[in-house]
Amino acid sequence: MDLSRTELEEAGAVLAAESGRFASFGWMRGTSGNLSTVVSRDPLRLVVTASGHDKGELGPSDVVLVDGAGAALDGGTPSAEAALHARVAALTGAGAVVHVHTVASVAMGRRKPGGIVFRDLEMLKGVGQPAHDTEVTLPVIANSQDMEELGDRLAQARDPRMPAVVVAGHGLYVWGATPRQARHHTEVVEWLLEFALTQG
Amino acid sequence: MDLSRTELEEAGAVLAAESGRFASFGWMRGTSGNLSTVVSRDPLRLVVTASGHDKGELGPSDVVLVDGAGAALDGGTPSAEAALHARVAALTGAGAVVHVHTVASVAMGRRKPGGIVFRDLEMLKGVGQPAHDTEVTLPVIANSQDMEELGDRLAQARDPRMPAVVVAGHGLYVWGATPRQARHHTEVVEWLLEFALTQG
Amino acid sequence: MDLSRTELEEAGAVLAAESGRFASFGWMRGTSGNLSTVVSRDPLRLVVTASGHDKGELGPSDVVLVDGAGAALDGGTPSAEAALHARVAALTGAGAVVHVHTVASVAMGRRKPGGIVFRDLEMLKGVGQPAHDTEVTLPVIANSQDMEELGDRLAQARDPRMPAVVVAGHGLYVWGATPRQARHHTEVVEWLLEFALTQG
Amino acid sequence: MDLSRTELEEAGAVLAAESGRFASFGWMRGTSGNLSTVVSRDPLRLVVTASGHDKGELGPSDVVLVDGAGAALDGGTPSAEAALHARVAALTGAGAVVHVHTVASVAMGRRKPGGIVFRDLEMLKGVGQPAHDTEVTLPVIANSQDMEELGDRLAQARDPRMPAVVVAGHGLYVWGATPRQARHHTEVVEWLLEFALTQG
Repeated sequence: MDLSRTELEEAGAVLAAESGRFASFGWMRGTSGNLSTVVSRDPLRLVVTASGHDKGELGPSDVVLVDGAGAALDGGTPSAEAALHARVAALTGAGAVVHVHTVASVAMGRRKPGGIVFRDLEMLKGVGQPAHDTEVTLPVIANSQDMEELGDRLAQARDPRMPAVVVAGHGLYVWGATPRQARHHTEVVEWLLEFALTQG
Repeated sequence: MDLSRTELEEAGAVLAAESGRFASFGWMRGTSGNLSTVVSRDPLRLVVTASGHDKGELGPSDVVLVDGAGAALDGGTPSAEAALHARVAALTGAGAVVHVHTVASVAMGRRKPGGIVFRDLEMLKGVGQPAHDTEVTLPVIANSQDMEELGDRLAQARDPRMPAVVVAGHGLYVWGATPRQARHHTEVVEWLLEFALTQG
Repeated sequence: MDLSRTELEEAGAVLAAESGRFASFGWMRGTSGNLSTVVSRDPLRLVVTASGHDKGELGPSDVVLVDGAGAALDGGTPSAEAALHARVAALTGAGAVVHVHTVASVAMGRRKPGGIVFRDLEMLKGVGQPAHDTEVTLPVIANSQDMEELGDRLAQARDPRMPAVVVAGHGLYVWGATPRQARHHTEVVEWLLEFALTQG
Repeated sequence: MDLSRTELEEAGAVLAAESGRFASFGWMRGTSGNLSTVVSRDPLRLVVTASGHDKGELGPSDVVLVDGAGAALDGGTPSAEAALHARVAALTGAGAVVHVHTVASVAMGRRKPGGIVFRDLEMLKGVGQPAHDTEVTLPVIANSQDMEELGDRLAQARDPRMPAVVVAGHGLYVWGATPRQARHHTEVVEWLLEFALTQG
């Protein structure tokens, strides 16, 4: 599959803008987190933010094209987590994946290691769930530095009704059809976690 | 009633600016919330923000003209909640309605399902109430997806001294004579809720 | 005393900038709070922000010239609290007074109605106090709508070592030699209050 | 050692930008905190932010060149803490030092005067530590106005695995190879402290 430099930079500009937004919220402190967008489904190809940069200072070329295993195709150094982005895209059909390190996700992951249960919240509609009378669980999985192990845990734990998983001691993975929908899902899941934190 | 494209966009520009402000506070995460302004009283007509958009990215044309039942007059898709905006405008005489999803409103609504009582707070003057010696209640109503039911609950529970209602598990409805006054009322009510949250 | 329109607007531009800064912190929600700067000492004259405006949207002409009793000299409507600004300036020799409504000040005023005691904090140096081994009290006074009564309470309660007083159920008065120093004192006092809030 | 005015202002522009960023986070309230960057290793020379300025309003010339004892070489008034910046640079080999006053650092310093222990947090990788199974301690040292005493405490307490120390009742010292890395370390340490605060 060929992706022109222009197409790569267009995808990079979108990810840089999304990244700057999340950084402004304090969700990508240090150089943490990474974002991706699917540019080809068959074979699976993603554009992923490059590793080690300040996520509030990315430019359109600070991205890497990776294959379905998260390996770089054009040079550059993707985050090790690129493999997990690719796995999420393959597993869920998502067109974009967001990985951020929010304090609320790690705090709630520690408080509820078996999963965080929500019900009777209008905000659940923001991730496609009913606002009433239905329990929806945000899964929590154990952290790992082995992306295959982490991906297996995510594959096993994920709830098709919830486009997100908390990685304990680590942060959030959230996905959506597009970068904008993934952003909205991320905002909604973080809202749910911040609400849960106030509930003692 | 005729509303020219220019008049519609002028109202839209005001709502887009207000919406961007509330989004910057984190009160409209995902695509949540909506704003409206009354453009005609008899017959009742409102301009309401369009559904499904990021509330930090609205433009002047991302609005819909609706009638007193919340039905679109010129095409476009208003939020289902447009009907409740229209009901609030009819019921209270307000010229603008703000609906936002704040964490503090949902947290306090869960803590105090019978209503949140305030007294001896200077900020109460910001919603037209005395700062001293008088209890003022911010009503809390149960959530519903049926706008008529939700409107009935709001009509029954609202306190004419308080231009706002908390919808449990959902967020805030606040109103005022103009978009700017509705903004100020919203800021005051949210301040009161954030204060109440610190009181354990 | 004559103050040219240009001089008034220069003072207004400074207050508008300070006001926009405090509003961006969320310390002037609704139309709450007001700022002043002394433009003449004998007779005492202050420029005070006009009442009822959004404190994030002030322009250089949204100010009023008042005398030592807080009465408007050139027309315009000062806040009723202008009289208290003038009293603080007379009492303390301050050249600028800041009045903001912060959640932390009202929360701590309710928790410690007899005054909030600080010690062993480097930040105390920011209000001219030693960082070590000395207790410094931020006085808390009861609220009143009578500015003379409120001024009497402030005069009696204030500690010359602390350029600030909490008004219970209301907010903060802070002062300094210049608008910039008053800003720094305000930031320091608010930091102290936010720290105190975490101490349970 | 000669440092041209241009070189000094280039270093000053970097520190002013970093300072404005930290001020926007609320970590340099009042005129608190200071930043430095090493411009010569032998002899040791640092450019340090000037004392007494608002840290959100620094310009490229609001800096002072100091020697390894923190004494000004070209005039200007460095912070008294310049001596500690120089000491940290000498001791650790760091190329940049950040000193900020965050509420979370002072709150956690009071809660854990013997040091704050972290483990099993992905964010630890942001300061070069393993995310799993290893305890990492952020040292807490007693405050002092004597920079030699404070430096001795820092030298004795610091853990080579952690590029930061909490000064109790005061704030954070954090360092890195460059101003950007020191920024990232600061953001990571503050994230860890904010997380720790939620753990009761």
